[in-house]
This record gives sequence, C-alpha cells and structure tokens, in this order.
Amino acid sequence: MTRALRFDIEGQSGEARAGVLITRRGRIETPVFMPVGTAGTVKGIRFEELESKDLDAKIILGNTYHLWLRPGIDVIRAAGGLHRFIGWDRALLTDSGGFQVWSLGALRKISEEGTEFRSHVDGSLRFLSPEVSMEVQAALGSDIVMVFDECAPGQASHEETERSMNLTTRWAKRSKAAFKQLQLDRADTGYLEATDLSGTQALFGIIQGAGHLDLRRISLEETVDIGFDGYAIGGLSVGEEKSVMFDVIEDIAPRMPKDAPRYLVGVGTPEDLVEAVARGVDMFDCVLPTRNGRTGQAFTSCGKLNIKNAQWVNDSRPLDESCSCSVCRRHTRAYLRHLYMTGEMLASILLTHHNLAFFLDTMRGVRQSIRSGDFPKFRREFTERLGANGE
Amino acid sequence: MTRALRFDIEGQSGEARAGVLITRRGRIETPVFMPVGTAGTVKGIRFEELESKDLDAKIILGNTYHLWLRPGIDVIRAAGGLHRFIGWDRALLTDSGGFQVWSLGALRKISEEGTEFRSHVDGSLRFLSPEVSMEVQAALGSDIVMVFDECAPGQASHEETERSMNLTTRWAKRSKAAFKQLQLDRADTGYLEATDLSGTQALFGIIQGAGHLDLRRISLEETVDIGFDGYAIGGLSVGEEKSVMFDVIEDIAPRMPKDAPRYLVGVGTPEDLVEAVARGVDMFDCVLPTRNGRTGQAFTSCGKLNIKNAQWVNDSRPLDESCSCSVCRRHTRAYLRHLYMTGEMLASILLTHHNLAFFLDTMRGVRQSIRSGDFPKFRREFTERLGANGE
Repeated sequence: MTRALRFDIEGQSGEARAGVLITRRGRIETPVFMPVGTAGTVKGIRFEELESKDLDAKIILGNTYHLWLRPGIDVIRAAGGLHRFIGWDRALLTDSGGFQVWSLGALRKISEEGTEFRSHVDGSLRFLSPEVSMEVQAALGSDIVMVFDECAPGQASHEETERSMNLTTRWAKRSKAAFKQLQLDRADTGYLEATDLSGTQALFGIIQGAGHLDLRRISLEETVDIGFDGYAIGGLSVGEEKSVMFDVIEDIAPRMPKDAPRYLVGVGTPEDLVEAVARGVDMFDCVLPTRNGRTGQAFTSCGKLNIKNAQWVNDSRPLDESCSCSVCRRHTRAYLRHLYMTGEMLASILLTHHNLAFFLDTMRGVRQSIRSGDFPKFRREFTERLGANGE
Repeated sequence: MTRALRFDIEGQSGEARAGVLITRRGRIETPVFMPVGTAGTVKGIRFEELESKDLDAKIILGNTYHLWLRPGIDVIRAAGGLHRFIGWDRALLTDSGGFQVWSLGALRKISEEGTEFRSHVDGSLRFLSPEVSMEVQAALGSDIVMVFDECAPGQASHEETERSMNLTTRWAKRSKAAFKQLQLDRADTGYLEATDLSGTQALFGIIQGAGHLDLRRISLEETVDIGFDGYAIGGLSVGEEKSVMFDVIEDIAPRMPKDAPRYLVGVGTPEDLVEAVARGVDMFDCVLPTRNGRTGQAFTSCGKLNIKNAQWVNDSRPLDESCSCSVCRRHTRAYLRHLYMTGEMLASILLTHHNLAFFLDTMRGVRQSIRSGDFPKFRREFTERLGANGE
C-alpha cells in the first residue's frame, strides 16, 4: 500500500538528523519549525510573508479545538477544507484538541469514552473523543493528523501517569481505526493526488509518560506496535523541570523508529530546539515567536531583547545585527520601541515577523550544519552567542 | 528663487484637474489620496505594502501633535528626522497639530499667542503656537508642512467664525515667518538636494471660514496674499451638513490659485473624493480606510460591506469582485468574517490593506479618466455602482 508520506534521512551528526519529509503538499526539509496558526491564522502575519524568502515556512499548525468551536466544521467543510478556507496551499498539521481540552482544567471531565468540557467561546457542553477528533481533522483536511491523547501533568505520580498513559494507548488504537475508516470514506477534504504517495492524510502517534522513563519506554513500544506515519513526544514543557524534559528526549528519541519523523510537541526556545535536534528530534512547533512578539520580546542571535526597555529609545541598530529579515533591514530598535509604547499594531506585526524569521533561520542553519558535518560547531557557537545580551 | 515644489496640470475635465506634484522626494500624480500615519505608522500596514504595486502610496501623512508628544522631537531629531525614524523614503506631509489640539475641546485654552492644552498621554501642560508647530515640523523634516490654524466648529456663528478666521490669518503670517527662518537655519532634518527644487520644506496655507462663503472668500484672499506653496481647505467634515461641505468646495476651489495644489483636509468617503475632484480638489487625506478597516467595514466598488454580518458566513467571494488587491485575490468573505469574529489581528490587517487599495485604486481611475477625457462617465458609473450593496 502506498504511504501518506515519506521520510528520508540525508545527513547525520551524532543523533542529529537532516532529512526530507515528503507530503502530499510538497517537500519539507527537516529539522523543521512549524509556526502555530491556532484559529486558521498565524497571529499577526500574512500568508504572503510566511511564504516569502525571509520566512519560507513549509508547514504550519492548526488547532483542532479552536477551529472546531469557531468557525465550526460546517463552515470549513463548506469552504472545501482548511487549506481553501484560509488560503494556504502548503502543508498543514493539526493537533488533536486533546491538549487544549486538558488545559481547561476544572472545566473538563475525562472518561474512557472521551472528554466532556464547556466551550470557552459560548459555554456550551461539548464532547471530544478519538472518533470525534479524527472526524474533525478529516473535515479540516490537514496533511498530518495527530491521535487524540491524554496528557499527564509534569509532576504526576507514577501511578497517575501510568493510568493516563494506558488511556492514551487505548485512544491511539481507536484514533487509528476511526482514521482508517474516514480515509476509506473519503471524508478528508484535503485529499490530493501526489506522485508515489497515497494522497490521503498521514497520522502521527504520541508518546506520553511524563517524566517517568520506564513509562515513556512502554508508551513508545505500544505506540510503535500500533503503527503510525510519524511519532511525537507529547506531555513535555507542561510544568516539569527543563532537565526532566531533556532527560526524556535523550532517552526516548534515539529509541524511536529511525525511518519515521520525530516530533517534539509544543517546544520551545531557540536553544531548546537546537538541543532537541542534537538528541534526534526532527519537528517542532511553538507559540513563543508569535506570542512573545506580541508582548514586546524579540528573539535574537544574542539572546532575548525586551523592546520596552528605555535603553533602546535612541538606538538606531536593528533588533538583531546578524539578521537579514525585512524588519531588521528597515527598522531600528528606537522605532520598534516607539511603536510598542504607543500601542501600535505594527509593533506586534514587525516583532512577530522577525521572531519567526529568527526561528526559521535558526533551523536553516541547523539543517545546513548537519549536512556539512559542522553541527557540533554550530551548536556550540549558537549557544555561546545567545548569552551575549545577558538576559 | 528656486521653489520647494512644482505643480503641473496635465489634464482637465470641467473643474477636475489631473497633474503632477514634484517634491524633493519624487513625483506624485494628482488627484492623490494620502493614507494617514498618525504616530509614524499607517495603522495595521507595513511600509512594504504601502510601496507595493497594490497600493503604491506616493505620500503619507504624519500627525505633528502625536509625534511631538510621543516619542518626542528629541528622539526623532536624533534619528535624523521622521523619514529615517520610521524607514520611509517617499514624501511625507505633516499637519500642524492645530486640529488635534482643537479636538481636545475643554482640555485646551486658545489665546492670541497659541493654544495651551493637557497632553492626552501624560496630562502634562503643553503649549502649541505657530512658532512651535513650525519648529516641530522642521524637526520632523516632512516634505510638506501645514501652517498652524484655528478651526471653527461646523455650525459656528458668523461672528465666531470671523474671529477664528482672523486668528488663523495672523497665525498663518507668523507660521510663514517662523518657517522661513527655520529653513535659513537649516533646521529641517529632511533637507534633500533635488533637481530644479530648493530642497527645503514646502509650506501650505489653510483656508478657514466654516460654512460662511463670504468669510471663506476673505480667508482665501488673505491666505493667497501671504503666499504659500499650496493651499488647503480646512474646517470641513467637522459636524456640518454634507451639502454645506460641497457648497464651500464648489465656491472656493475654483477661486484658488490654478497653479498650486489644492488640498481638502480630512475628507472623506470614496464618493466624497470623486465629488471633490469634480469641484477642483487635488489632494486628500482621511482615516476612513484604516479606521473602518479595524472595525470590520470594507469599502468596495458596490458600497460599504460590514464583514461582521452573518450573511457572509459561507460566502466564498472576495470582499470586492472587481478588486485585484492581494487580499481579494486570496481570501474569502467567509474567512475574513471568521478572523473578525474571533478577534484575530489579521482581520484588521487584511481589511486595512483592501480599503487602502480601494481608495488608492479609485484615485488611479480618477486620474486616468481625467487625462483620457472620460471623467464624467467615470464619475457617473462609480456613483451608480456604489449603491449596489444597498448600504
């Protein structure tokens, strides 16, 4: 049977891998960073900019929970799927909604069947399950679908984590079964004929287990047994110590299937990305470049820069003197500070653009250095420079 | 003596004129619409877009009042003027601050010397006068400077208007004297050598007189006697009936110097622009395309369109089927409505872009039709189509 996607490794440096993920919507070089487009828009940036040479994002993420509640699946199905609804021809990955519902805390109730919760939009009672999540993601027509999982808190006990992990495994099986049926029924609005590919959606499994390595290994084994197009490490960056996160990645990533993409969900800072690549991760998503851009924080090659600081009031330098993005080519810190202090929307627009450029450019540097064999040097120099601003 | 700008009329249709305004920062075809960049940014749009083929704005406006208060003149002077501070090489016009201070109402006190007011930013006591306004505008280095004037309310009595108009005339003389000295002192941060031009700032006078035609004619005569590079009609669209506005324009514009640009301050809707052109106006500025874009109102060739309306929920048409801007080429009403309803910044960004494209494109159509002799037909068809949406 033809697969929904292909993954070829083309370069390796220690555990770090440089490869190509071939989807029905084109080639994606890995390691790759995926900007987060929660409600069908990467906040504060136009699609033309995402496609521009500055950013050249090959894949973005959409949030099933948000899109399901608003505008709702009927609207997106009527538009012919999420790609057409938002006007984006490149690849889309959608999460399962599980993490968002989990984040609602007291507002949700988890059972074997699924999760009942109240919508944050209108307070209505909703029910999300593996079957519903797969149905919604088929209507969205994303190119990569995530299984519906349950996330244990960062400091969960062994017992609590084990129960949660076993539920995730049972939900993964149900997700796969529902997913297969939906593909057979041609419910996927994003179906696209593609050379050597099935043209259907791809499905990724998610490894849970919090900070308990024995449970992580069991979760990995059971998830791989079910069989998916790619594998994600979930449940990290949810309140645990950073050392716990890297311990899990270091232990688990190298044990994951070598011929499938490895996706670290919801992580992280530029240094997190480089360190996770060094441990064998291929795919990332995170709201940091967009969210922090809106609150006045720039990511630069010399570390974080808070544009609100009075020290920039007359500073004619760009945000990052090593950056060649359109914001750094044109605008000074003094101007960006002024925009932020006067509450102008352009502050968010420009900081978001630069931050995404920095994240995506960092990943370009990572890929090149792995291919050329210079990744250890890149990693060392990148980390050293990040400390320069002393923030 | 070489002039600061040149104005050549190249086509005429009744009172409507098509010409070229040659400034130290390039040629501007007229009639022209100037997007408003209050605090050094046209709200919600990047400079790259203003320069793009879609919009191609040749001149934008900055507000002296806002920039004087924030970031302040020291910051802008240190940056080398407003062009350099914001990163815009094309022409800039700055208003005098008079209208903004006047709009503060009870918070300001007008005397012969000038206007005392409290800053809306920090409540500090400030004083603006012809001399201060000219000094601030020299520090901004705008290419076209406006005299400091006083605006009478739309329904002001004859006596009140006369007193206000006479003050404006005295302030115009003081503005010109201060302006001349500042140019001699090279206080203008925007000085630029330009072929056949002085390279200094240009200064426009402002005709006041509310709805009283006899006072308008006196104001015109006295303002022309003082002598300026261009002439503006001020104090319209400030609460008077629309018929009063057009009566004033119809009476005054044809009596204004034929060889100088005529600028109608702060007006208006697309139909206002076309009707004012028909009465002999060459330059416009207005916040409508940007402000209304942020509140969900689109200007289209079929009239206004409120993107919030439920009728667009599944509408796959662009905002304006006759528009070729990047927003109309890519996005549907259904998507734009979704963005607006979820409070996404991209709604404002995209509606602002389209609205500016529509205003600037309308002016392109106006210019072409005057040159080709088809302006009466353009005007008739444009007005007829605007009624199509029935809003």
